[in-house]
Amino acid sequence: MAQTFEEISAADFFYRNRDIAGFTNPARAIFSSMRELIENALDASDLFNVSPDIYIRLSQENETELGEVAVYTLRVEDNGSGIPPRHIPSAFGQVLFGSKYKLKQARGTFGLGGTMAVLYGQITTHKPVYVTSSTGTSKIYRYKLMIDIQRNRPLILDRKIQINKEKWHGTTVEFCLEGDYFRAMPKILEYLKQTALVTPYANITFTDPKGRLYKFTRATTKMPTPPKETLPHPYGVDVEIIQRLTRITPYRNMLDFMKMHFHRVGENTANRFLEFAGISERKNPKKLKPHEIVKLVRMMKRFNGFLPPDAGCLSPLGEELLKAGILKELRPEFVAVFQRKPSTYSGHPFIVETAIAYGGNVPKKDDIPLYRFANRIPLLYDEASDVSVRVIRSINWRRYRVSSETPIIILVHVCSTKVPYKTVGKEFIADRPEVKREILNGIREVARQLQRFLTKQEHVEKERRRLSVFSKYLPKIARFSMELAGKEKPPNIKKLLRTVRKLEKEKD
Amino acid sequence: MAQTFEEISAADFFYRNRDIAGFTNPARAIFSSMRELIENALDASDLFNVSPDIYIRLSQENETELGEVAVYTLRVEDNGSGIPPRHIPSAFGQVLFGSKYKLKQARGTFGLGGTMAVLYGQITTHKPVYVTSSTGTSKIYRYKLMIDIQRNRPLILDRKIQINKEKWHGTTVEFCLEGDYFRAMPKILEYLKQTALVTPYANITFTDPKGRLYKFTRATTKMPTPPKETLPHPYGVDVEIIQRLTRITPYRNMLDFMKMHFHRVGENTANRFLEFAGISERKNPKKLKPHEIVKLVRMMKRFNGFLPPDAGCLSPLGEELLKAGILKELRPEFVAVFQRKPSTYSGHPFIVETAIAYGGNVPKKDDIPLYRFANRIPLLYDEASDVSVRVIRSINWRRYRVSSETPIIILVHVCSTKVPYKTVGKEFIADRPEVKREILNGIREVARQLQRFLTKQEHVEKERRRLSVFSKYLPKIARFSMELAGKEKPPNIKKLLRTVRKLEKEKD
Repeated sequence: MAQTFEEISAADFFYRNRDIAGFTNPARAIFSSMRELIENALDASDLFNVSPDIYIRLSQENETELGEVAVYTLRVEDNGSGIPPRHIPSAFGQVLFGSKYKLKQARGTFGLGGTMAVLYGQITTHKPVYVTSSTGTSKIYRYKLMIDIQRNRPLILDRKIQINKEKWHGTTVEFCLEGDYFRAMPKILEYLKQTALVTPYANITFTDPKGRLYKFTRATTKMPTPPKETLPHPYGVDVEIIQRLTRITPYRNMLDFMKMHFHRVGENTANRFLEFAGISERKNPKKLKPHEIVKLVRMMKRFNGFLPPDAGCLSPLGEELLKAGILKELRPEFVAVFQRKPSTYSGHPFIVETAIAYGGNVPKKDDIPLYRFANRIPLLYDEASDVSVRVIRSINWRRYRVSSETPIIILVHVCSTKVPYKTVGKEFIADRPEVKREILNGIREVARQLQRFLTKQEHVEKERRRLSVFSKYLPKIARFSMELAGKEKPPNIKKLLRTVRKLEKEKD
Repeated sequence: MAQTFEEISAADFFYRNRDIAGFTNPARAIFSSMRELIENALDASDLFNVSPDIYIRLSQENETELGEVAVYTLRVEDNGSGIPPRHIPSAFGQVLFGSKYKLKQARGTFGLGGTMAVLYGQITTHKPVYVTSSTGTSKIYRYKLMIDIQRNRPLILDRKIQINKEKWHGTTVEFCLEGDYFRAMPKILEYLKQTALVTPYANITFTDPKGRLYKFTRATTKMPTPPKETLPHPYGVDVEIIQRLTRITPYRNMLDFMKMHFHRVGENTANRFLEFAGISERKNPKKLKPHEIVKLVRMMKRFNGFLPPDAGCLSPLGEELLKAGILKELRPEFVAVFQRKPSTYSGHPFIVETAIAYGGNVPKKDDIPLYRFANRIPLLYDEASDVSVRVIRSINWRRYRVSSETPIIILVHVCSTKVPYKTVGKEFIADRPEVKREILNGIREVARQLQRFLTKQEHVEKERRRLSVFSKYLPKIARFSMELAGKEKPPNIKKLLRTVRKLEKEKD
């Protein structure tokens, strides 16, 4: 009995295993489709450094009887950089084709999301996707596409060109899919709200199947510095990376090879490293033998003279914008924000930003009061498995005067050239010691600020109660003192009360 | 600023995201490489229905100084079905090529594992993999391979043919990789032990880098019925599956199409379904228009006259073998095993088997006393996220006389044509309601059996204590009674004691 062998395409693989990409069931599929397209739209806007205007419309196509599955049309429009026309078919009709394969901070990370959404729509409705886009040139392109899943290739059903009179730039994606919006609704609205919080410079408008309009208006036009592409860091390399570099490098000597292809390696560092590794600086990288490449990689990991990764390529939100977002969406009584210094794991730079908000419209969550973000997208699933929850559980909150009754929410934002996701569905962040440590220290800092606020608040509350007792009894005390003193005329109560109230106000 | 687009191969995708496939760090990579090759070996043995003999050798290649990474050679040999020579290069040198793409219960599930191990070895050591295999023909083939990761294609460096005098069949894989065996060791030994438990008909021999030999000898040659390939069930189809079937079907009418391509659809069921769906039985499936395919899929999901999936294609362990494995590895005082009736989720059949072992060499685990298995492989990571843990936490164990001191271990085994893994790394099973329910009922059944045993044991213990009190005081009582009765001669104490001890023994 022999084994039978076959090969399948990448599209076929993710079609068969779409659960893994977050397309588990009709409710989750609607959520995943929306979030992937919204994240693509926001990434495209970052590139253009223009405040994003994102329009999302979900409309129902059929009248559903009980038990019948609903079919929706999902339309997402943005004003970002647009997609060059020659790339549009593959960007949506081919898996593992995209713009996320650079070493750069981006919301999309696997280059799968948009195409997975289109694939899911196709396998449930057999309808094509319409993509309209322009990069701001004189033309707007509109494609009608489907995916040949077995070959992982786009099928172009139609293409139209319009004149771009207003020099519009952006992308519109529209396709049909089966789904369960009403089951997905709480998570979708939560996603939009948290996205608006962490992207306070964006206008996000959502029209749901019942025609209800949800509008998240920008609180500022100030945007974080866009992320920049970076070179690989020596501590993060392996044999394959070096192999590829030796194949494409224009440099014929190891000194230039080290200086030009790696992050923060200057002339001095390169020289010192090559001496440490026992490699001649004049050696031609293209002439490195396999065992020499292996040795080079080992030496790069062992040499401790390399500068740590520079987080200049990263684009965190920044304390000001994070605070603006929280104030806009949660209107808390108190908010503390903090940005840790950059750190690294496995040669990848990352920055952790944390915040705590107290009171106001802070949401009441069942279990852990936590909002998680990575590269400026909300993470809404599998909270229990996320590293942040472990950190929060390990903290003794009573030290910070926080009990299970205290109305707070903790925010954790991790940004990196490579967020250590556990799954392709981007549900939660894995338990990496370097990341865990940064999150712990970040949370402690804002918790301390909250503690100072709560202590002061408690103190103010005590004073207020004390003074309100005084002002209640003051007339009686005055009269009594008067009787004691044998005076005829009572002291000026009003004057006394005014003094007391003045004292009260000063304490606030 | 435009987006730059590129495409990457499937090998490149899993190279860049190898964490997701379980190749996170040197310790985990050694574990994942071993488990993937062992699982391939066991799958190949199932096919041949011959008791597996698996030999694993991990030897260290270099002398490591402190802080230096170790390089190992990993060699796995089996006596299974072997791989046809024309498929050997792609089976190990190409991602998404393999034998796991049928609708059939198998340990390997994504068709990635073996190639990922080879890929990891290559990117850390730049050395080729050696594959020797024969399907029992007159020839044995030996290939020396590497992977062209950017093209996802094998590179054949050498090929040798030997005469197969003894008509050997099986496969040997040997390659080098960086790793951290000593950190991985506890998990590796745990994996081997649990695999031996759930595969009691296999001989597994492991030689570790220090030359220590671990031998898990088979307790029986009896094997479960091999799993069988099955047809898709109507409840699990989508538009893409129907599309592909219409393209390849040799049948020119819908009646035969329904009968021959779907699981458990006979003439009657096919007729009744087509009537329900309003589709003529004479319609040519190749002439179905897109909207008719969509309608067909909807009708298939809505029609409730289809027979539920038959689990005859599945290959659970069976109560006898499960008990044999537990007795072999754990030597408990008590064991209860149970196999639930087959069930289904999303059109996929599955069977849950549970067991509880008490006392003896039952391991002491920190948190939840649980062994998890899926398609006869142990799951050792991310226990907290697994559906079985949720089930165990939801049970009131005091009802069953189980406390945190009770020395027990719970075993849960799920087998299916498609195990609902959450990740490509096969770490844990997702929380599907149908699966959860089956696990809950399975655990309750064995827990009840344990309860009866513990109650009886407690009762026996009480009796023993009572009788031992009697036998201590019996001589005194006898003498006292004698004095009371005024007798001269004491009763025969020895005879009395013999009676007491006889009573004691009967209670055991």
